[in-house]
Formats: sequence, structure tokens, C-alpha cells
Amino acid sequence: MTQKLTIALDAMGGDHGPEVIVPAALESAKNNPDLSLILVGDETVLRQHLGGAAERFGNRVTVHHASEIVEMHESPAKVLRNKKDSSMRVAINLVKEGVAAACVSAGNTGALMATAKFVLKTLPGVDRPAIITAVPSKTGHTHVLDLGANVDCSAEHLFQFAVMGYELVRAVEDNEQPRVGLLNIGEEEIKGNEQVKQAARLLADSHLNFVGYVEGDDIFSGNVDIVVTDGFVGNVALKTIEGLAKMLGRSIKTEFEKNVFTKLAGLIAFPVLRAFKRRYDPRRYNGASLLGLRGIVIKSHGNADCLAFSNAIQIAVKEVEKAVPTRISERVASIFAERKTA
Amino acid sequence: MTQKLTIALDAMGGDHGPEVIVPAALESAKNNPDLSLILVGDETVLRQHLGGAAERFGNRVTVHHASEIVEMHESPAKVLRNKKDSSMRVAINLVKEGVAAACVSAGNTGALMATAKFVLKTLPGVDRPAIITAVPSKTGHTHVLDLGANVDCSAEHLFQFAVMGYELVRAVEDNEQPRVGLLNIGEEEIKGNEQVKQAARLLADSHLNFVGYVEGDDIFSGNVDIVVTDGFVGNVALKTIEGLAKMLGRSIKTEFEKNVFTKLAGLIAFPVLRAFKRRYDPRRYNGASLLGLRGIVIKSHGNADCLAFSNAIQIAVKEVEKAVPTRISERVASIFAERKTA
Repeated sequence: MTQKLTIALDAMGGDHGPEVIVPAALESAKNNPDLSLILVGDETVLRQHLGGAAERFGNRVTVHHASEIVEMHESPAKVLRNKKDSSMRVAINLVKEGVAAACVSAGNTGALMATAKFVLKTLPGVDRPAIITAVPSKTGHTHVLDLGANVDCSAEHLFQFAVMGYELVRAVEDNEQPRVGLLNIGEEEIKGNEQVKQAARLLADSHLNFVGYVEGDDIFSGNVDIVVTDGFVGNVALKTIEGLAKMLGRSIKTEFEKNVFTKLAGLIAFPVLRAFKRRYDPRRYNGASLLGLRGIVIKSHGNADCLAFSNAIQIAVKEVEKAVPTRISERVASIFAERKTA
Repeated sequence: MTQKLTIALDAMGGDHGPEVIVPAALESAKNNPDLSLILVGDETVLRQHLGGAAERFGNRVTVHHASEIVEMHESPAKVLRNKKDSSMRVAINLVKEGVAAACVSAGNTGALMATAKFVLKTLPGVDRPAIITAVPSKTGHTHVLDLGANVDCSAEHLFQFAVMGYELVRAVEDNEQPRVGLLNIGEEEIKGNEQVKQAARLLADSHLNFVGYVEGDDIFSGNVDIVVTDGFVGNVALKTIEGLAKMLGRSIKTEFEKNVFTKLAGLIAFPVLRAFKRRYDPRRYNGASLLGLRGIVIKSHGNADCLAFSNAIQIAVKEVEKAVPTRISERVASIFAERKTA
């Protein structure tokens, strides 16, 4: 039973490595007494960061040595070939071996996806894993996939992304029938490309709660729970969201810092602005899931801080508790069975 | 010489038709004594909206009758076939005939593009027209194209979009060497699709100031002046921007309207928030250009108000003054000449 809530952390990954990941592990262990965490990485470095802090959690926070580190800009192929004892790879190995039920890494996305695919393999019936994350919407949040794992996607790929996203959201949101939208553009004559049109037909014929085409602004409209698109478009959309949010956030700060009057106004408006900021705090959305693998792998933002990385751990915990890969696997199997009888 | 600054307005187009477009025309005529405007549409309706207001501009604000209206959701093919006396088509005809130097429409994008292509034709050497608009960035604004005219684009198409965007920005921004970025995703192994990679090679070999690949967040970073992508991705990015900006704008309003204290805070913060809002007011960015045609056509947002539609007219004026189609045509011709000698 303990195995179920043991999560391996690539403790050397990301822009800040153990500096952020060790405190995030301790914080998460404190907040969830059922949770065990394995910090994977350079043992000496990790023990230094831990000090005596791990002791109060008994054996719930442990260190697992790994001698190498995957750099943020290393090529996935090279990492796969040469860094067999990286903290990233060893953390994924622990999932493969059943020692951990999930792993979380803030390391480079390409390397993480390549390693996870190589070590864990994809689920039967899944052609390609996909990356999914939640973004805030008017009414709560919307899950968007794929976010960059797959650039050129066939209709079947898009369909499979929808299936995986559907099962994830059903599991972690307690929403039995999440609404699935297929991202498209609105212009009449020039509507959509062939893959998108075909994917729409596959989705309309499925048991998924497919609501039809949606456009970029529907990510926020609350009209859908899941937005499906290829990895190129999804990645651009996500980066666009991050870029705009960052610019607006900084800009409003600058406006309030202009002079003594605006500073005073900012002071008075502070509680309101704080509530607003909290609502859209990207750290509270940190943690993208690599779906379609025989195991749970969560990608944290490279520059995540303690709060953000803890959020990614929380996502891993939830997916373990809800056995997301099993659910996806079962759904995919039932779709295959249906297709055979059809 | 007068012809140069005469602009035809599809006065029946958009969600609000003459209710918005007539006042916007009057306002624009007032602000620019060199500008003449032809309101194209139902003469009776337009005269009603004008009242006696046109008289004070002499013959600078005139009415040109057109009996039909293109609805917002009509198919472009049907419009092209059946609505030969629509306000949209007649306005474009006036450009074709040299009566007007540009036209502005808030009507449906697909129909506008199809009609403009059919009536005006594309410039020699341009395979496909594209749609471009400016969006606010950290340091000013960034032009993004294509925004939806072309879903499946070859490397050559992307290259041509870059050329057209380059000439537009050079002309209207007085920026001799605008920086051109090609939209891509950042993941190493899985970087980009084939068209994007090929387009990058074409751009690197050109005389354009190509800075390389950029990602979604670079639309706002101020690192580039022009972001080039296909119409699907560009449309999704633009709609995503609009959707997020709208959600955040409403949300901050809601936070300040929560109770008497937050309302008070909002009152005090009002000048700061107003400055912030003004900086990003989408109305000040209204007006997308259809590039690559033998004439200037500006697409206004369907739900534009008077300020927004006036902005679209301003954009038309600027493109006329700078002879944008001629500049694009010359640049394309010089590229063709180079290729022949290469």
C-alpha cells in the first residue's frame, strides 16, 4: 500500500534543482502524511540541502543517488544515449520498477518525454503520448493538449489525445462527462485542415462528450473542459498565454509604481489585486502530465519555485490516487473492442 | 491627388452596421481634412443615419448605393456568387476602379477575403494573400501574420508572408529593418515541422532581417517586430490573446466590484487602471490588413465600436499614404529577379 503514494522527484532538474525541489518535497511531506518522496540525484548535494530536515518524516523523505544531471538544453537523443544515470532517468526507472508510483521532473521537456517513452513505453493502443495541462478559465479551468510532444498529428492522433484528456479530467476533476472541444479557426470557407475535420468525425462518433469545434478564446470561456489540438498549436497557445499574462502582470505593477500617488492607490487596491493575482497565479497551475505512458510522469516548469513544484507533486498524487494510466488504458481498449465489432 | 485619400467603407458590414460606421466616418473626416470617405450601402438607411451631418464636410463624406448586405455567417462562396451588389463587394469594386484608394469592412472575414481576392486579384508573385494585425507588446507592438486566410502553408507561403509583413511594417512603422521571427515551438527533438524548417532556410538566405525562431511568448517580448506563422496557428494565437485579455479584464473588474471596500479601492485605483486599460485597449489595435492584393483592404472587428472602426480607417489611411501594395509588389519582384540570377 505504501508504494501507491511514493513519488520519485528528479531533484537535480530544472533551473533551480535541489534548492527548490528539496524544500518542496519537505513541504509536501508535511502537508500529506500518506505521501512518501524519493529525492533522486547527487546524494551529497541532496543531504546538504536536507540537513536534518528529512528525519522528522521517518522514512517518508529519502534520497536515491544518481550521478548525472540532464542539462536544460541537451538534446533528447544524446540524453537517452549517454546519461543513463541521470536523476531524470533514475527517477523514471523507479516508476518502471514499481518503487515509485509517479515521478515529477522540472527538467527539459524533450528529454523527459523521450526518456519516459523509452523507459516506460506507451500504453497499448496509444500511438503517441501527449502533454496536458490546466489553464485558468472564466469558470474554473480548462485542460489543453497536446502541448508540444507531437508536431504533425493525424486525425487518429488527435482523437487519441481527446480520449486521454477525457479520462484524465474524468478522474481528477470528478466530472463524469467533461466537454471536449476540438480547436479550430472560425472562418467559414477556410475552416480547418483535413486532419481536424476528420478528427471531428471520429469524435462525433465516439462516446466522448464532444461539443464540436472551439476557437482559441474558448480556452477561457468555460464552454469546454478539454481543448484538443496538435502539439505545435497547443504549444504556441500555451506560450502565448504565459507571455501575455506575464506582460500584463508586469505592466499593471509598473503602472502602480509610477509615482507616490499611484503607489498609494496600489497600497489601497492591494488586497483586491492580490485576490486577482492569486486566482491566476501560474504557480497554482504548474504541472503538466505526460499522458499515454505506462506510468505517471509530471513535468514541472523549469523555473518553478517551491509553491509551484509542490503543486506539480500534488498533481502526481492525484493521478496516482485515481490510477489515471489504468483508466486511459481501459478506455482505449474498449474503443478498440468497439471498432472491431463495428 | 484627391483619389489618393478617398476610402470606401462597407457601411452595412459588421454587427452594428451604419450605427457605428457612419459616426466613425464623420469622426474620421473631422480629424483628417485630407480624407474623403464613401459610405457604401443602402442609400436611404445611410442618409437617415447621416441626417445633415455630412454637409459640413462638403463632398468629403458621400454615399454610394448598394442594395445587398453580406450577413456575418454567410458562406464566402455563396456571397461571391449571389451578392454582387452587396455593400462589401461594391466597396471593393470602388478600389478596383480607382475611385477609392482603400476599403474598410467589418463584415465576415471569409467573404471579405474571397471577394477581395476575386475582385482585386493578388499581386504578381504572391501565391496567397495573408491577414496581418498588430498586437501590443512590452515595448510597443508586434505584427502577426497569417491570421486565418491560409490553413495549410508551404515553406514558400510562409516566406512570402514574411516578405509582405516586412514591407508593411517598414512602411507604416518607419522602421527600416524590422526584425522577423518565425513562430516555432521550443522542444529540442521535436522542434518544428518540415514547412517551418524550410521556411527558416529561405528566410535566412533572404535580405530580410530574420532573427530566427520565436515562440508564442515572443509576440509580447519585444524581441521581434513581425511574427510569421500559418493561418491556423496565427488565428488560434490571436483568439487566445483576445480571450485571455477579455477574461482578465472582466475578472479584475469583478474583483473591484465585490463590496463597498473594494469599490472604494477601485475608485482610488481608477486612474491607474484606466492608464493600464488604455495601453491595451483592443479598440486601439482594431484593423487587420489583407496583404498581397492589388489594393488595400482593411478588416475591422465585427463588433467594433466607433473608436475601433475609426482606428481601422486610420490604418487604411496610413497604408494608402505609404503605398503598401506597391512596396510589396516591388519587393516580391526583386526577390524573383534575384532567384533567377542565383
